[in-house]
Amino acid sequence: MSFKGVAAGFLGGLFVIAVTSARKGPAPKPQVQRFGQIIALKPDKLAYYKELHAAVWPSVLKQIKASHIRNYSIYLKEIEKGKFYLFAYFEYMGRDFDADMAKMAADPETQRWWKETNPCQTRVPLSGEKDWWSAMEEVFHID
Amino acid sequence: MSFKGVAAGFLGGLFVIAVTSARKGPAPKPQVQRFGQIIALKPDKLAYYKELHAAVWPSVLKQIKASHIRNYSIYLKEIEKGKFYLFAYFEYMGRDFDADMAKMAADPETQRWWKETNPCQTRVPLSGEKDWWSAMEEVFHID
Repeated sequence: MSFKGVAAGFLGGLFVIAVTSARKGPAPKPQVQRFGQIIALKPDKLAYYKELHAAVWPSVLKQIKASHIRNYSIYLKEIEKGKFYLFAYFEYMGRDFDADMAKMAADPETQRWWKETNPCQTRVPLSGEKDWWSAMEEVFHID
Repeated sequence: MSFKGVAAGFLGGLFVIAVTSARKGPAPKPQVQRFGQIIALKPDKLAYYKELHAAVWPSVLKQIKASHIRNYSIYLKEIEKGKFYLFAYFEYMGRDFDADMAKMAADPETQRWWKETNPCQTRVPLSGEKDWWSAMEEVFHID
């Protein structure tokens, strides 16, 4: 349920006026887009990757926010003996995903960060040619 | 940000009174707990699993909500040729996870659903003895 829906439900007519008035302003908020991605983690980089992510650089976090990424989690799992994978889940709240990702890729601090993290990772066998992290298919979602 | 925080921000002092009054009632909302889980999917069950999840039974969705699970997504990925995995991400908004999961497991409709989905899945090699879906380790999160 949206905030507007909740607020109107709580407060009735008075707030409905405020909502209507707010709609004359900027375009409505874009809907959230969810992403699930996977990449392999080199076993000998396990400790370093975890160390990096226990204290991600503030400049990198700032760029994540600036690129409209929210509720971003990375999970680690050793699926088979010696085979480690990373799973990312995040929500995109912006209006132009490709442009926001391009901004992230152009950010010098993010580039410096990726120089640390990329050597920890390898593409999964069935990822696309251009992928680093590989997209997963959403087969179910409930809010 | 919580709804209360947003509403107080929008509406100022008047609503703060309502919030303060509400606090005399039940205990404050528990913090969200995030979960990442993995399980393998049998290649010959791929189509059926997707078909089931394209239209999950309303009774099953109702129990998910009743057990305080929110923002629940399942992703599918063929990592290596013929090796399919399912990744679940969800948020728990309740106060007693084990009790809420026990309620789900006791629900006849959920049991009927699991009779369809369980034969599609196999445990990942390194899951715990008692696990069906296997927990993944959160190594990073930003709101």
